[in-house]
Amino acid sequence: MIVIMKMGATPEQIEAVSQKVQSLGFQPHVVVGEKLTIVAAIGDQKRPEPDVFELMDGVQKVTYIMKPFKLASRDFKAEDTVIPLNGTQIGGQQVVVMAGPCSVESREQMLEVACALKEAGVHILRGGAFKPRTSPYTFQGLGMKGLEILAQVREETGLAVVTEVMGAEQVPTVAQYVDILQIGTRNMQNFNLLHAAGESGKPVLLKRGMMSTIEELLMSAEYILSHQNYRVILCERGIRTFETATRNTLDLSAVPVLKQLSHLPVMVDPSHGTGHWELVPPMSKAAVAAGADGLLIEVHPDPERAMSDGAQSLKPERFVRLMSELRGVAAAVGRSL
Amino acid sequence: MIVIMKMGATPEQIEAVSQKVQSLGFQPHVVVGEKLTIVAAIGDQKRPEPDVFELMDGVQKVTYIMKPFKLASRDFKAEDTVIPLNGTQIGGQQVVVMAGPCSVESREQMLEVACALKEAGVHILRGGAFKPRTSPYTFQGLGMKGLEILAQVREETGLAVVTEVMGAEQVPTVAQYVDILQIGTRNMQNFNLLHAAGESGKPVLLKRGMMSTIEELLMSAEYILSHQNYRVILCERGIRTFETATRNTLDLSAVPVLKQLSHLPVMVDPSHGTGHWELVPPMSKAAVAAGADGLLIEVHPDPERAMSDGAQSLKPERFVRLMSELRGVAAAVGRSL
Amino acid sequence: MIVIMKMGATPEQIEAVSQKVQSLGFQPHVVVGEKLTIVAAIGDQKRPEPDVFELMDGVQKVTYIMKPFKLASRDFKAEDTVIPLNGTQIGGQQVVVMAGPCSVESREQMLEVACALKEAGVHILRGGAFKPRTSPYTFQGLGMKGLEILAQVREETGLAVVTEVMGAEQVPTVAQYVDILQIGTRNMQNFNLLHAAGESGKPVLLKRGMMSTIEELLMSAEYILSHQNYRVILCERGIRTFETATRNTLDLSAVPVLKQLSHLPVMVDPSHGTGHWELVPPMSKAAVAAGADGLLIEVHPDPERAMSDGAQSLKPERFVRLMSELRGVAAAVGRSL
Amino acid sequence: MIVIMKMGATPEQIEAVSQKVQSLGFQPHVVVGEKLTIVAAIGDQKRPEPDVFELMDGVQKVTYIMKPFKLASRDFKAEDTVIPLNGTQIGGQQVVVMAGPCSVESREQMLEVACALKEAGVHILRGGAFKPRTSPYTFQGLGMKGLEILAQVREETGLAVVTEVMGAEQVPTVAQYVDILQIGTRNMQNFNLLHAAGESGKPVLLKRGMMSTIEELLMSAEYILSHQNYRVILCERGIRTFETATRNTLDLSAVPVLKQLSHLPVMVDPSHGTGHWELVPPMSKAAVAAGADGLLIEVHPDPERAMSDGAQSLKPERFVRLMSELRGVAAAVGRSL
Repeated sequence: MIVIMKMGATPEQIEAVSQKVQSLGFQPHVVVGEKLTIVAAIGDQKRPEPDVFELMDGVQKVTYIMKPFKLASRDFKAEDTVIPLNGTQIGGQQVVVMAGPCSVESREQMLEVACALKEAGVHILRGGAFKPRTSPYTFQGLGMKGLEILAQVREETGLAVVTEVMGAEQVPTVAQYVDILQIGTRNMQNFNLLHAAGESGKPVLLKRGMMSTIEELLMSAEYILSHQNYRVILCERGIRTFETATRNTLDLSAVPVLKQLSHLPVMVDPSHGTGHWELVPPMSKAAVAAGADGLLIEVHPDPERAMSDGAQSLKPERFVRLMSELRGVAAAVGRSL
Repeated sequence: MIVIMKMGATPEQIEAVSQKVQSLGFQPHVVVGEKLTIVAAIGDQKRPEPDVFELMDGVQKVTYIMKPFKLASRDFKAEDTVIPLNGTQIGGQQVVVMAGPCSVESREQMLEVACALKEAGVHILRGGAFKPRTSPYTFQGLGMKGLEILAQVREETGLAVVTEVMGAEQVPTVAQYVDILQIGTRNMQNFNLLHAAGESGKPVLLKRGMMSTIEELLMSAEYILSHQNYRVILCERGIRTFETATRNTLDLSAVPVLKQLSHLPVMVDPSHGTGHWELVPPMSKAAVAAGADGLLIEVHPDPERAMSDGAQSLKPERFVRLMSELRGVAAAVGRSL
Repeated sequence: MIVIMKMGATPEQIEAVSQKVQSLGFQPHVVVGEKLTIVAAIGDQKRPEPDVFELMDGVQKVTYIMKPFKLASRDFKAEDTVIPLNGTQIGGQQVVVMAGPCSVESREQMLEVACALKEAGVHILRGGAFKPRTSPYTFQGLGMKGLEILAQVREETGLAVVTEVMGAEQVPTVAQYVDILQIGTRNMQNFNLLHAAGESGKPVLLKRGMMSTIEELLMSAEYILSHQNYRVILCERGIRTFETATRNTLDLSAVPVLKQLSHLPVMVDPSHGTGHWELVPPMSKAAVAAGADGLLIEVHPDPERAMSDGAQSLKPERFVRLMSELRGVAAAVGRSL
Repeated sequence: MIVIMKMGATPEQIEAVSQKVQSLGFQPHVVVGEKLTIVAAIGDQKRPEPDVFELMDGVQKVTYIMKPFKLASRDFKAEDTVIPLNGTQIGGQQVVVMAGPCSVESREQMLEVACALKEAGVHILRGGAFKPRTSPYTFQGLGMKGLEILAQVREETGLAVVTEVMGAEQVPTVAQYVDILQIGTRNMQNFNLLHAAGESGKPVLLKRGMMSTIEELLMSAEYILSHQNYRVILCERGIRTFETATRNTLDLSAVPVLKQLSHLPVMVDPSHGTGHWELVPPMSKAAVAAGADGLLIEVHPDPERAMSDGAQSLKPERFVRLMSELRGVAAAVGRSL
């Protein structure tokens, strides 16, 4: 932490900052320059509240040196986290594809999709039972019945299952039915939910908030990790910008940035990231080329009749073709799929 | 809802769209132009899922005519909603100020602030017992003990109290202690929480998500209103933009826009909106001049020692002076304070 | 400038950074902490190219202490810059209103507006002769004929005149016709134009780029100031964000932030900032309450027939009423109008 | 164009809109619904000024059907535009790489880079003679001397050359020295410059404004195309968002979106798009996988000593390796490189 004093800060003000640094358990180093003075406090394992210094007389600004996340960082764990699940390894050499419809609509729909996906080489099935919808007047998901359908299809097909959980109070129930708990973009900073997901011990697919920074995503992962639940999968799914041609702006640079900063696996959701099914194939290929450990893709047997997100869903045939296209790209960057 | 067909759409494609419109219960009107054809479906009280048409062959895009919110709109209720509380009226002629520290830290702290605020003419005390913090390693609020302190101070001073509730599971408890439930910016689309707040029957202070549009804010209000809980207070608190000179960008235009679209009261939080106490006085005056029904201001007796958000908190003396400055601005726009 | 070394940086790497600091003419201070080491270079009147250090082995990041602008800063000149013009003073005690139509359309139109504005107490007339338009197929302004009309109306009414200049090559000509050169939002970083405006010696109204930071605005002012042309007026006119309810998001916090950082006068353009005439009155009042030194308002005698920006133009009657409303707000914050 | 009337619009208001539609040369179609009425004007080859209708009594909003760009659209020209240059074809089957240092610094520097690039298979050399810099106090480019160096290196190596032109007044000169004129991100809406570039008849590399939508990029291309200069190359180079981990957010979805909407070639600049050299290889591969027609990459023999943008420049060795990695990705998506 470095406290930069204002021009003309008095010796008393500098001394007060030094003493405050000391009172917080750090060693202050005062560097006096021609125009400016700084007080450096090295050794900040634990950040003090950010505002402590900014209000002191004579202080211009405070800069932090240490990253605020710890358990999620490469400094804490240098080698990649690999999460074995249902015969595949998330974060390993293979690019893992999770696919399925936005919403669980019926047993038939799920079974039809699941079989097609399995044949295409998918290991993990996605499908929403509880749906976060902007409007209270639209389809909100099948709820418990959706969970039961997921559990049945899981048993019948042998696919692992991931579904979204929308509040801390739902975690224990949802955790009984599925293999991976998904925390959605609107809940990335629902801290009660993060705590509950951490306590559940289940693998967690944590989607980046649509207006959250990469650092905030890692801080939210830190909430889960702090419960000794180390099976956290990060997911870039598009951020909100001024551009309206796409539903969100898929921030693929986040993939290599996250891989540099953190040991956790990084997936990409090109379906929500773009909002248009035609854009899913090129952006899926781009995600793999950028180094993503996996993809989350919406597939629906009849997108025109989907109860949510039809416009961004691939039909199974198109998805099968995409899988084969992706194998070439994966190979070009030294991965399998 | 207006379906715009692609150039060169075939008669069959146009017919298919018309039939789909009819199957949804609307009357289709086909308008054939020189280059383009549109199919208009007037009477859309209930929106179909947005993606239904976009996937049909020959469709270029779909435009909605009706606003997606209903109970929150001026069309539904033309006159302003006024919420009487503790001798004042939120949404009435008077500009209502809610003030207090970011976090409840101790009974002494709260009582000291509360007395100063009361003397300055404040009717409603704010203070967080449960704190949503980006980092799991920072102060998370006093929790239940904080609620008890709020209840005591409420009793001793006669001030009404508003505090944040962070999850659906906490609503019944928090509702017992306070007069207004606050839903924070990170939870604006925590739909489980919105349902629970609606069911509680308590007045709700709904803060705009830092990443949410004005329309989404009204849709979230709609969740609460749909439980026949009509005492919803909207609050602009700054949105996230590319500018870093301020913590957020306070979107004051949202005030007149919301007043046009909705009958609900609109408050402004210049403390979170700017992140710097020096900016709170000018932006408070600006908010009142723009037509805000109230302000939410952080006041702390000793900001340097605040356990959160010290940098944006006013000292009580500065706050008292601000109240008197605000009276002049309120009068200039035909309001009292 | 503070160079923060990576954890585990070697003594050789630290030494190399120190020597680089010295070679640039600064005195290096090495502060060795428990985990991290920093090299501080105090006295940086002139910033080195930002990337010099970031590529050196062992360097984690570089933080700059000094603001990059100098002539525009309060450190350079503590007292407010006041620009006398046509009997008023921009940046003085009085709030200055510049008003007029978006485009100069005819002599009759300009004269009609100008007379109404003058009677309402306006000192400075605005009107575009060269129009920056997104589409090459829309009205591009009257060009030279527009300038001549402005000059005539200026002579007939005694109003000062401000108009936009779109390229360096136009500066000498435009400078002959008007009192203030306006640099538009899309040209805020047209550096050739900034140089030419600086050289002209004319007062310059510099509008903030719609996606430029406050710091970048001050850096663009610095270009003009570096030609010893100190008559620069800054103008906040709305920034681009994800919100679509308004044309732009008017960033009124920029007013007090700019007044803190710089001595230059700060105006606000609520017409472009909101894009809707109904929002112009509340946001004009808010701007004055926030401390703006002036307003730039679009007024058109017949907005429905305006050749550009009709939707955001006030009719003269509404403008006259606004002027009287603004006087009350100005008085409440200790200003006249 | 569809004019949506307010609820309760009177027959007179609807009639007035219809007449206005007619007076603009369109055929009005009035569709009367249960709650709302719309007036559709089909056949809008030329858009009227957008604000004409919005101010009419009883009008709620206006929606445009036709895209505002014409010459740049696939509707105008279905097949891809291919620009032959120096033995390669921009927009053809081959992915074209333009590379070189940010700034021309000396003849030796340029020659060294150019030879390395040529050997690696590059056809087009980039290098800035005129540099748009945020600060007037930093290196502004060698100017005319830089152009001369570019011309010499072009002659000696046989590479084609692209360089930035910063104002309309510079176009005739720069056009004499180079093969492609680059219009930079800050000048994407410098309309005088767009006109001049159009008139020059030279191929133009048009970079997307960091604050500009995809539609605005195509409208700026339209300015150039409207001068019968059809050799326009679009370039995505990162947009400004709230994320600060990267210099900009590289919007790779823009590649397939632009390819859908337009026949013009689309390049990607991962150097400016990310701002960090480590991110250039993954994002280059991602760009090719997403369907980009080419890449613009900064390469510098000694990035630590670069006069601008060193942090985002690859060393020649790393660039050579990247070229070979890119060949695999290009092959996987059916392209060569």
